[in-house]
Amino acid sequence: MPDKILDAVTSDPVSMGWMQGLPPAPDKRLAWARADHMRFPTHRHAFSHMREFLPTARVGRGQGPVWQLPVALRDDLDAVAFTRPDDGRSLTWGDVHAVNFTDAVLVLHRGTIVYERYFGVTRQDTPHIAFSVTKSFVGTLAEMLIAEGRLDPAALVGDLVPELARSGFADATLRQVMDMTTALDFSEEYTDPASGIGAMSNALGLTPRPSGYAGADDVFAFLPTIAKEGEHGQRFTYRTCNTEVLGWIVARTEGERLDQVLSRRIWQPLGMEQDADFLTDTSGMPFAGGGLNPVLRDMARFGEVMRLGGALPGGGQPIHAAALASITAGGSTAAFDPAGYAWLPGGSYRSQWWFVGGNHGAYSARGIHGQAIYIDPAAEMVIVRFGSHPVAANTAFDPTSLPAYNAVAEHLILHG
Amino acid sequence: MPDKILDAVTSDPVSMGWMQGLPPAPDKRLAWARADHMRFPTHRHAFSHMREFLPTARVGRGQGPVWQLPVALRDDLDAVAFTRPDDGRSLTWGDVHAVNFTDAVLVLHRGTIVYERYFGVTRQDTPHIAFSVTKSFVGTLAEMLIAEGRLDPAALVGDLVPELARSGFADATLRQVMDMTTALDFSEEYTDPASGIGAMSNALGLTPRPSGYAGADDVFAFLPTIAKEGEHGQRFTYRTCNTEVLGWIVARTEGERLDQVLSRRIWQPLGMEQDADFLTDTSGMPFAGGGLNPVLRDMARFGEVMRLGGALPGGGQPIHAAALASITAGGSTAAFDPAGYAWLPGGSYRSQWWFVGGNHGAYSARGIHGQAIYIDPAAEMVIVRFGSHPVAANTAFDPTSLPAYNAVAEHLILHG
Repeated sequence: MPDKILDAVTSDPVSMGWMQGLPPAPDKRLAWARADHMRFPTHRHAFSHMREFLPTARVGRGQGPVWQLPVALRDDLDAVAFTRPDDGRSLTWGDVHAVNFTDAVLVLHRGTIVYERYFGVTRQDTPHIAFSVTKSFVGTLAEMLIAEGRLDPAALVGDLVPELARSGFADATLRQVMDMTTALDFSEEYTDPASGIGAMSNALGLTPRPSGYAGADDVFAFLPTIAKEGEHGQRFTYRTCNTEVLGWIVARTEGERLDQVLSRRIWQPLGMEQDADFLTDTSGMPFAGGGLNPVLRDMARFGEVMRLGGALPGGGQPIHAAALASITAGGSTAAFDPAGYAWLPGGSYRSQWWFVGGNHGAYSARGIHGQAIYIDPAAEMVIVRFGSHPVAANTAFDPTSLPAYNAVAEHLILHG
Repeated sequence: MPDKILDAVTSDPVSMGWMQGLPPAPDKRLAWARADHMRFPTHRHAFSHMREFLPTARVGRGQGPVWQLPVALRDDLDAVAFTRPDDGRSLTWGDVHAVNFTDAVLVLHRGTIVYERYFGVTRQDTPHIAFSVTKSFVGTLAEMLIAEGRLDPAALVGDLVPELARSGFADATLRQVMDMTTALDFSEEYTDPASGIGAMSNALGLTPRPSGYAGADDVFAFLPTIAKEGEHGQRFTYRTCNTEVLGWIVARTEGERLDQVLSRRIWQPLGMEQDADFLTDTSGMPFAGGGLNPVLRDMARFGEVMRLGGALPGGGQPIHAAALASITAGGSTAAFDPAGYAWLPGGSYRSQWWFVGGNHGAYSARGIHGQAIYIDPAAEMVIVRFGSHPVAANTAFDPTSLPAYNAVAEHLILHG
C-alpha cells in the first residue's frame, strides 16, 4: 500500500490496475482475507465488484420491460457553484466529483436524465455497493406493510420477533426501530473493531473474523445479544442493528427472505434494468443495513418513484401513497437535533430516510463512502451517487455533497 | 444427514426445507465450510444457489432484446419409452426424470420449446451450476478465435502461455488441449481428495482447504505444477485441467477475463434472458472447467445456435460457420475408444464437446450430476438438462439419459 495521501486521481482504480492481468500481479491482487474490499484505496475497485469477494443473493428484475428513463443531457450543471460550509471555499458541481471520490453520479430532472457521469471502474451496468442506502429500501418496504395493515407501527419488537423478547429490542416499538430512536448498547464506530458495528460485521462475515472467533455466526444469532441502554423513543441514534431487526420483521411478515421481497415488491414492479446483488451471511439472510448492490440508474428509478408519490410515470402505484405520505411527513427534529449532525441543520430521520432540512422538503438515502439517493421535491429533482471516499463517515463528504445537491436543485428551479 | 438411501422424492430439496426459515433451523442449514454445496442430498438445494455459497462474477446479458423461444408444449413425449442398456429395463421419458434426479429439463424441436419441466427448487429463472457443460462454451470460444485466425491449433501451449513453459503442458498443442489428448499426471477422480481434481478444487477454493494448506492459491499458480506423463496426442483422457489452460489461452488472446469474453461473444449476441453466474477463484478468474451457472433456457439457446450452424433464427451469425464445422467434424474415435466409455460406443471428443456415436451426428456438453446440452441434428432437436444425481460421475446417469435423449429424438423424427 502506498503511504502517501492519495487523491481521487492518484487512487483511480483503473490506473492502480487492481485485479488486472491474467493473473494479476501479486501487488495488484485484492483479497477478502485482508479486507481489501473494505479499505482505501483498494475499495475503489472492490465497491464495484462485491460479488467477487462475498456470497450474494440475486435481487431479480424479472422479465418485464425496463422503465426507460429519457435522456437529455445538459451542459450547464458543471458550472453550478456552491460554498463549502466547512472551509468557506467555492467549488463547482463539475469539480466536486474528484474532491469527494465520486464513482458515478446522475441527476434526474422531472424524470429525465440531465446529467450522468461514471468514473474509475464503475459503468452504467456495474452494480456498486450502496451501503446504508439499502436501509431506505427496507424502511420503505416496512411502510408498505404498514399501509397494507399487515404491520402495526405501535407493535413491540418482542411480540413481532419472539427471538428478540429477551434482547434490548424487546420493548421497542416498530416505529422506534424504523426511526432509530431505540436506546441500545451498540456503537456505530466503523473504525473500531470492538464496536457494535464491528461485532456485527464479524457475525455477518463481511470482514475476516479474528482467529479463535467465538461470536455469533449470523445476524439472527447476533441481534438477540444486543442489550438496552437507556429509554427507547427519546432521541435518534444511528445504529445499523435497527435495520437488521427491521429486515427480519419485513421478511417474517412476508414469509420470504429480504432479497425475494425486494425483487417482488420493488425490483420487478419498477422495471429495473439490472438485477441487484445482495450480500448475505451464512444463514442466507441479506445484509439489510448495507448489503445492496444496484446499478446507478436503478437507484435513480427508486428515487424517482418516491418523488412521484409511489406512482410510475407509465401507470401503476407500486408503493402506496399512504406509505409515501408517512415517510415524507419527516421525523422529529427534537429527537434528531441532539445527535449533532452539523451538516443537516433542521434535519430529521423517518422510516430509514434522512430529511436534510431547508425549505425544499428534500430527503435522502445515505451510505458511507458517498452513496446517496437525494430527492428534492421542490426542484422536481433526484440525484443518485456512488462514491469510494477514503473515510467511512458521512461527515467526511457531507460538506462537499449536500450543499452541491442543493445548489443543483436551486439552479434547476431558477433555470428550468 | 440421513443415512438411508434417498431417492429423488425423499431427497426433494423443497420437502427437505434446506435454508428455509428466518433463521433456518440448525439441521436445515447448509455451509460452504462443510462442503454441503458439493454433496448429496444438500447439493440438491445448493446447485441452484451457488452464488450464495461462493464468490461469483457476472456474465452479463446486456440490455438487448431477449431471443424469444416459441413454446408449443406437446403431451406425447412423456410416453416415449426406451430400454436401459445397463439392466435392460424399460422406462419412459416421463418417468426417467425422478430416476436420474433431474432438476430441470427442456426439449427444443426445430427451435420451439415442446417440453419443459422444473423440479425441486429449480425454476425458469434459477441459475443452476452447469459443471462441465461450461467446458463446451470455452471450447467453442477457442474455435471462434481459431476461425478468426487469432489462434493456431498447432501452436504449443508453452509458446501461448509462457508461464506453462516448464509444465507438462509446454509441448502440447492447442488442439491437443482442446481435444484432451494431452498426457498429464492429473487424475480426474472426484471422490478422491488426493486426486488432481481434488488439488485443483482446493486451489480454486471450491471446497474448504485442509488446515495448514500450503498448495496453490489460484488456478494460475496450480496449472504450472502439473507434470507430463506419457506422450501428448495419443489418446483421449478426460482431465478438467485442460479446460483451465484453454480458458487462460482464450482470456489472454482476448485480453479480458473469461466472464467478460463469454458475455461479449455469446451472452449478449445470443439474446440470453438472464445473466449467468460464474464461480471465481481468489484471482478473480472464472472456473473454466465447471463454474458456469446459467438458467435452463439460456443453455437451450446455446444448443440451438450450435444446431443452426452458429446462426440466429432472427439473423446474425455470432458463432462462425467455420468454428461450427470444425467442432461438428467430431474427434478421433481411435483416440477415444481406449478411454472405455461403455455408454458412448463410437463416440469421440472434439473441442470440449462429446460426440455420442450413432447415426444422428448427435453431440453433447456434459457435466457431472446430470448437466447436459444434447444436440441431435438429424432430429432437429436440442435437449438441455440440469440434475443433482447423488453420484459425481457421468456413468451413474448415462444409461438413463443418453438412450432417453435418443428415444425422444427418434420419436420426433417419426412423428414430426
